[in-house]
Order: sequence, then C-alpha cells, then structure tokens
Amino acid sequence: MAEVRKARKEAAVAAAPVWSVDPRTGNPREQVADEATAEEVDSAVRRARAAGAGLADRTVRAALLRTAADLLDEAAEHVIEAADAETALGPVRLRGELARTTAQLRAFAGVVDEGAFLDIRIDHADATRTPPWPDLRRWKVPLGVVAVYSASNFPLAFSVPGGDTASALAAGCPVVVKAHPDHPGTSELCASVLRRAAARVGLDEDVLIVVHGFEAGVELVKHPLVSAAGFTGSIRGGRALFDAAAARPAPIPFYGELGSLNPVVITEAAAAERAEEIGAGLAGSMTLGAGQFCTKPGFVLAPAGAAGDSLLKTLTSAVSETEPGVMLDHRMRDAFVAGVRERAGLPGVDAPITPGAGGEHTVSAGFLTVPAELLTAEGGPHDLLLEECFGPVTVVARYASTDEIGAVLSRLPGNLTATLHLSDAEGAGTAPGAAELLAELVPLAGRVLVNGWPTGVAVAPAQQHGGPYPATTSTSTSVGATAIERWLRPVSYQSTPPALLPPELHDDNPLGLPRRVDDVPVR
Amino acid sequence: MAEVRKARKEAAVAAAPVWSVDPRTGNPREQVADEATAEEVDSAVRRARAAGAGLADRTVRAALLRTAADLLDEAAEHVIEAADAETALGPVRLRGELARTTAQLRAFAGVVDEGAFLDIRIDHADATRTPPWPDLRRWKVPLGVVAVYSASNFPLAFSVPGGDTASALAAGCPVVVKAHPDHPGTSELCASVLRRAAARVGLDEDVLIVVHGFEAGVELVKHPLVSAAGFTGSIRGGRALFDAAAARPAPIPFYGELGSLNPVVITEAAAAERAEEIGAGLAGSMTLGAGQFCTKPGFVLAPAGAAGDSLLKTLTSAVSETEPGVMLDHRMRDAFVAGVRERAGLPGVDAPITPGAGGEHTVSAGFLTVPAELLTAEGGPHDLLLEECFGPVTVVARYASTDEIGAVLSRLPGNLTATLHLSDAEGAGTAPGAAELLAELVPLAGRVLVNGWPTGVAVAPAQQHGGPYPATTSTSTSVGATAIERWLRPVSYQSTPPALLPPELHDDNPLGLPRRVDDVPVR
Repeated sequence: MAEVRKARKEAAVAAAPVWSVDPRTGNPREQVADEATAEEVDSAVRRARAAGAGLADRTVRAALLRTAADLLDEAAEHVIEAADAETALGPVRLRGELARTTAQLRAFAGVVDEGAFLDIRIDHADATRTPPWPDLRRWKVPLGVVAVYSASNFPLAFSVPGGDTASALAAGCPVVVKAHPDHPGTSELCASVLRRAAARVGLDEDVLIVVHGFEAGVELVKHPLVSAAGFTGSIRGGRALFDAAAARPAPIPFYGELGSLNPVVITEAAAAERAEEIGAGLAGSMTLGAGQFCTKPGFVLAPAGAAGDSLLKTLTSAVSETEPGVMLDHRMRDAFVAGVRERAGLPGVDAPITPGAGGEHTVSAGFLTVPAELLTAEGGPHDLLLEECFGPVTVVARYASTDEIGAVLSRLPGNLTATLHLSDAEGAGTAPGAAELLAELVPLAGRVLVNGWPTGVAVAPAQQHGGPYPATTSTSTSVGATAIERWLRPVSYQSTPPALLPPELHDDNPLGLPRRVDDVPVR
Repeated sequence: MAEVRKARKEAAVAAAPVWSVDPRTGNPREQVADEATAEEVDSAVRRARAAGAGLADRTVRAALLRTAADLLDEAAEHVIEAADAETALGPVRLRGELARTTAQLRAFAGVVDEGAFLDIRIDHADATRTPPWPDLRRWKVPLGVVAVYSASNFPLAFSVPGGDTASALAAGCPVVVKAHPDHPGTSELCASVLRRAAARVGLDEDVLIVVHGFEAGVELVKHPLVSAAGFTGSIRGGRALFDAAAARPAPIPFYGELGSLNPVVITEAAAAERAEEIGAGLAGSMTLGAGQFCTKPGFVLAPAGAAGDSLLKTLTSAVSETEPGVMLDHRMRDAFVAGVRERAGLPGVDAPITPGAGGEHTVSAGFLTVPAELLTAEGGPHDLLLEECFGPVTVVARYASTDEIGAVLSRLPGNLTATLHLSDAEGAGTAPGAAELLAELVPLAGRVLVNGWPTGVAVAPAQQHGGPYPATTSTSTSVGATAIERWLRPVSYQSTPPALLPPELHDDNPLGLPRRVDDVPVR
C-alpha cells in the first residue's frame, strides 16, 4: 500500500503540469510544460556540459550573443505578447525590457571581443629573483555549467535571455535555466529563440536548456556537475538555495540577488528647496511597475516639520492619482496586502494613503509614515518596517535631527542602492553635512545616488547591481560588464612550452588582446 | 553547584594558557599568551574596525606595508630564531621564507601605488541611450575587518605577516589574525613588528591584532563586524569555518586553502628520456621541508614497464638518502605515521621505501606504489590514496595505458597544482598526446606545470595559488597581485556632484590612476 502510494506520488511528480496563468484574472491560460524530474535535471546538466565544449571559441560566443539578440528582435511581437499575458507588465514596459535585454546581449558580445575579462598576465622567467621566478602565464577559464534562477519581475532582462545567461555564455559557460513559474510560456519561447541562435552559429542547442519546477531548482543547485549559480528573487528562496550551494560536498559560488530596502535620505534643505519635485519623483519611482522593482525606494528618511509636510503633500497627491495595478501573481498580491496591513497596524504608524487590495485582482499604491525615533532601538516590533515589502508601498520615517538619520541608517541591512537628496548648496559643498551623509550611505549599498531615483538600472560598464547582504550573497554585480567575472576562474601555466599554450598566452599576442606583461599593461 | 561549575569553567577558559612548544622534543618552551575569550575577540574586532579608518589613505597603506617589510628585515635574526624554535623548519628555509614575506609586503605596496586594483570605471551620462544613461562612476572599496587564519607550515609567509594580511591591509582592511598554535611566539613577535610599523606611519596599532585559541577562531568568523576571512590549513578545519561563515545571518566570503593532492603525470616518453632527472626531482620536491608543503606532489601517475622502473629506481635511491625530519608538531607526526600505515596496508599497495616514524620525534620519507587500475573504480578502499597525506610521502600509481591516466584523473578532487612531465618531442608538439593530457589537467588545478615541480610558489603577478575545491573554497588566489581582489567590493556613484566624489573618480584624474572611461582604458 505504501509502495503504491510512493509509486503514485513519483508518477505524479513526474507528470506535474506547468501552467501559464493570467495574473489579470488568476485563470490558467494553457499548460506549457511539465516539471522536470531529478532524472531530467541530471540529463539537462549533462547535455549542457557536453554542448559547452563549443563555447571555448570566443568568436563563436560573440556570434551567439549577437545572433540571440537579432532573433529576439525578430520575435519581438511574440515575446512581448507572451510576457504581457503572463505578467501584466504591459507592452510599453516590456518593449523597453526587451530592448534592454538585446542591448545587454550585444554588450557582452563586445566584452568577449575585447577580451579584457580574460585578465591575461604574463611574467617571464626571472633568474634575478630570490628564489628565481619561472615563466608564468595566467588567464581565466570558464567555470562549467551555470544554473540560472529567473526572476518573477523581469521576464526577459533577469530571466532566460537575461543578464545571468548572457554573462555566463559570454564567459564560455553553458546554462541551465530554472524558469520562474510566473512566466513559463515566455521562458519556453525565449529558450527556443536562444537555442535557434546557437544552432545558427554552429553550436549545439543544448548550450541553453530550460527546466521548470521548484524541486527541479533544488536538484539543479545540488548537481555535482553544476559549477556556479545565479539567482534573482526573494530572500527566503535565495537563502535556501545559497545554503544548499554551500552545503554541497564541493561548494559552488552562488550569486544571489535577494532583497533590498533601497533607503532614501532627504535632507531638510533639499525638502525646503524641492519639496514638490522630490515628492513627485518618489511617487513615480515607488509605484513604477506596481512597485515590483528590486530597486524600489522602500524606505525614506524625510524631515519632520514644514518642509517634510510639504513633500508628503505632493507625495500624497501623486500617489492617490496612481491607478490600481496588477501584480505578477496572486500569491504576491496576497503577501503585499498582508504585509501592508501588518505594518500599518504598528503603533505610531500612519497611512496617509492606505495601500492594499484594489479590485479583485489589483492592488492600490500608498505609503506609511512613522516617527524615525521609533526605529532607533533594536528588537522592537517596528523592525518590520526595515524589511522589504514587495509592491507599491514605501515607508517614510520622519526624523527630528541629523543624529536620528544616522541612528536609523546604522540599523539597516545591506542594499542594492542608497539615495541622497540634497539642496544645491549641499551638493556643491558650500553647505555642510552632505559628505558625512554620503559616507554613511556608502557602507549600506553597491550603488549610491544623489538627487535621483534608484529604479532604472543602466546596463553600463560602470554599473554595480549588488550590495551587502541580503542585497546580494556576493561582492559582485549581476548587471554591467563585470558581471562576466562571476563565471570564470584563473589558471596559471608554469614553464609550459609554446606549442602547448593557448594563443592568448603566446608572446607575440596573435589575437591582439589587452594583457599585463612583466607587470606592465600592454595592448 | 551548577553555577559554581559554570563560573569555574568560564574562569578556566578565560585563563587557558598558550604555550610555545619545541617540536624537536615535544617539550613546552614558554607560555606566550592566553587564549582569547569571546569578549576579547569582540574587543579585538571592534578595535581593529575603529583603527581601520586610517587605512582609507592609500599612501599610508603603501607606507605601512613597506615599513613592515623594513622592520621585519631589521628583526630578522629574532624572527628566524623564534620561528625555528617553534617549527624546526631550520634557519635556511626560514631565511628564505622571511625574504619572500618581505618581498610580498613590498609587492603589495606597489599594487597599492599603481591603483589598477581599484578597477575604476567612469561612464559619462549618455542621453542617446534607450533609456538614457546617468553618470556612473565605479571603484572598489575595502570590505571591512578581515579575519586571517594562519597556516602551520609557513610561520611567516602564510601567517601573521603573510599574504592574507598583506593583501587585506593593501585593500584597506584592518586584520585580526588567529595565530596558529604551532608558532604562537613567532606570531606575537611578528604582530609586534607590524604594529610598530603601523605606529611609525601614524596609524593606530590596532590595524593588526593577534588572538589565540581554537574557540577564539570560531568566535571570530561568526562576529557580525567581521566582513571576510582568509584561511590556510586542513580540509577539516577549513570546511568547519567555511560552514560557519556561510551559516551566519549575513554570510561572508571565506577564502580558504584547504588541501591538495597535486597530481603529477609522467608520460612513457618522458620517463624513457629523463628517468633519472624526473626521479631525483620528484624525490626533492616531495621531501622538501619534510613534505609539509601544500604543493607537495602527493600523487604521481608513472608508466608501468622498464622506463617507469628506472624512474622509481632513482626515486628509491634519492629518497633513501633523505635524513629523517622533524614535523611541525607531534599531532601531525602521529597523523602522518597512521595515514601512511593505513595506505600501505591496502591490497596491491607496495612500499619500496616505507615512510613513517623515524626516531622518537622525527619521520622518515618514503613512497607507495599501486597499479593505476585499482584507482579507476569509485567507492573502493583505494580512494584513500586520492586523499592528501601531509608529510614526506607520495603515491606512485603505475599506469598501463593512456586510457588509465584519463580514468584516474577524472576521479581526482580539485588541486592547487597539476604537473605534466613530457619528452622533448611531446613538449615541442612533434610527438602526439601532450595537448590532450594538458587539457585533462587544466580542469583539475589552478596552476599547471610542464617539466617542473609544484613546490615553490613565486610571488609573481601571474601567480595562481588556488584551485577547484577542496584546494580552495573560492575561485581566487592567496598569492600574487590579484589576491587583493578578495577584500574589496565595488561601489558605483550615480549622478553624484564632483564635490562629493572621491578624487579617484574625478574627471581630471588628479591621482593619475589607470581607469576605463566610457569603456575605453586610459591612464
């Protein structure tokens, strides 16, 4: 009897269907795939590994990335339609996200072409050293199969064709993506485009494979042939996978982006000078995409008193004009409504506009206020206000003194971003205090902004999208040129005959790569 | 009664004495310190953190590193005497190790001066992008307090004044070192020299603090204000600390160098061509420093048949001429003797020269042989031969075919090094097979060598001292210029007024640092 139940259960797991769901109604749209069994995950990893050999050629890698971008552009209407049906993010936003995704693929092709990421260093033998130095030539090689865990809130830019995939392929690593259950159809569609791109440049399509299912994701991070993982999602899910990666017999790097409060500090002088501009800007940033950005400003330190009141008046008016929005799925909607209710019920917390359930399937934006002094002591119920609440809500803490700003900032966890709003004189350094405030923000985040808003992450070489835990589980970035560094490891060749060296390490530099030779940069 | 026991226990912990021991006799020499209590560890971390502010100035950091090197040179005789008394490594080796240590400190001063490690990237605002790019300026900042766990076998170069400390200080991080119990007196002496150097350049001495005791080491990696850790030691100890670092509420990077077999492959043609040279070289490398190097060649694939026999004949004769040696402590000696006995007792294993207990306090070198075919199947008792045995022993597996080489290599764990011995024609590429063998070795190690020996790790910019787990717990290196990268994290400034930017990120590059501006390298 137990055997029968076990067999049934196994059969049920093997056949668990993956449905595409319409978040605007909560209704299932179509069955897209089945969840992968442990055997299927194993097969996917082995096939990806075998296919990965073709990625050793950097020219082919660059061609793959550019072809993937071209084919995604060609399939744009299908991709946007599929993503909108599953995420309700809307065609305008998704068109922008697709443009960002293809630009990102092309940017990594440029990174591959240039070759600086190989970090080539050649030290010729030096008998004058004590002890003598042998000939040493170092570059970076791909780690192996990379597991990518897609984000709910970016069905393109942080999912199948997103930054983790692009940077891993650029590094020469085949990829197995665990699709997000909020957009399985989009994931399958994008995977088919990327696999077509692989075939077109002469690669095995299995350099990218998509699997579905929670258990499949757990199997994936534990698989002995998986060499590293990239993740964008919640603290709870990301930490569980991080722990599994660290607990392996041979631990692997786990590059997770988990959660971020993205604090904003508005000085008294800034509020006095630009109350309306800042209030309107904050409303726009915190409600953008129904507040479903990892860089949403979720915590604001604003001055008590008249200037702050004026700012909040604009914020109130701007937020109240925001239409109710559809969140990515109903579980998130429920979590948002419950999270807001719990926070709003805390003593001393007011809700000038109560965020929460909009219609049956939507949420309405709002914000909460609290005296900053309630947040300076550790361990109280108000600590909840220092945790991210995913959705269109922010917490405005009103401070009475600069000391209170510092006391609250010192209690914040790590963040992707931290923002400072200053008056003109403070920004110009002709009024005091700004440098000190900025120095308090830098330890809290990977990106600091002045007089801007953190939503919107440019795919630029100088970007840093990552910060102290729990913002990320590493010191790296998941956006920008240096994201490629996550998937490489250095290898040094000692006293190796030229016939056996890769051309990248030959003395005559036949590929024209940037290198350091005898500790001097040359190109 | 329970209270009394508790108080007694606490008092006992507080007062646990740390003794310097003579490994040549096993006798205690003198009490050097007390083990640090949890409170003392907490105080050390907080004091180091406060002192670390002074390290923000790169000029001062470079001066600290050079002054530390100068003062160590001045104190050379004392340092070598102290280290020899506690480790029995002998003055010749220790003089070399000190030279290497001071050269390493000076090399990192050069790295600090040059500033390439800051990885500065400036992207000016670009309105032509979709969406427009803001002004972004990225560099790397120090992580915070670094915990360093000293190695037993390098009382200088991988201990208090060693590579982890030098690279962390170069990065701008204050350091708390957990001293190794095999050389507490040397640790105290070196710490006093480094603290004197700090004072001489105007820094708070607490930029470097030494603590003693096993429990103190555990407290240290768990301390909320410790930001990263470096470790050189055993798989067991390193893995326990790695696990503790990963299990923290906010995990921290743990850069551990744990253990390595350092495989050597000798081709049939190489053995035929240079049997004596290779046999003698292997004997020298595996017995160097009583086999107590992390890069000791602990596993050798040599051909069956006449050429291999000839090689082993030389090895036998060279090893038999080696004098018994004193190991770093008696616990290691006992582990070596037991480890050799267990391995030698396996079926099919021969001991042409039985390694083991020499005199009462010494060990004698030797080696074991085994048919390679016994190592190709998983899960058998012979797997023990694929684990590191610390001390003057190596395992020579005799292979009958090239396929057997591949089958055994595919079963090896990660290594610091992997070595290939080739004939002249194989090295020149005029005889086949060498490229394929090298391609099998690269996935196994961070440094691959041809026709050399892995002991001896040049402190060169192109060095890679780190490899797949368990060689290291990360993809980084603990030796060479890039070791500094472990203690930094990137921060990007968005739209920040020049008055608030660090000078390193100003447009006019007042410090003349190497940078990438709008994705083009400039200097």
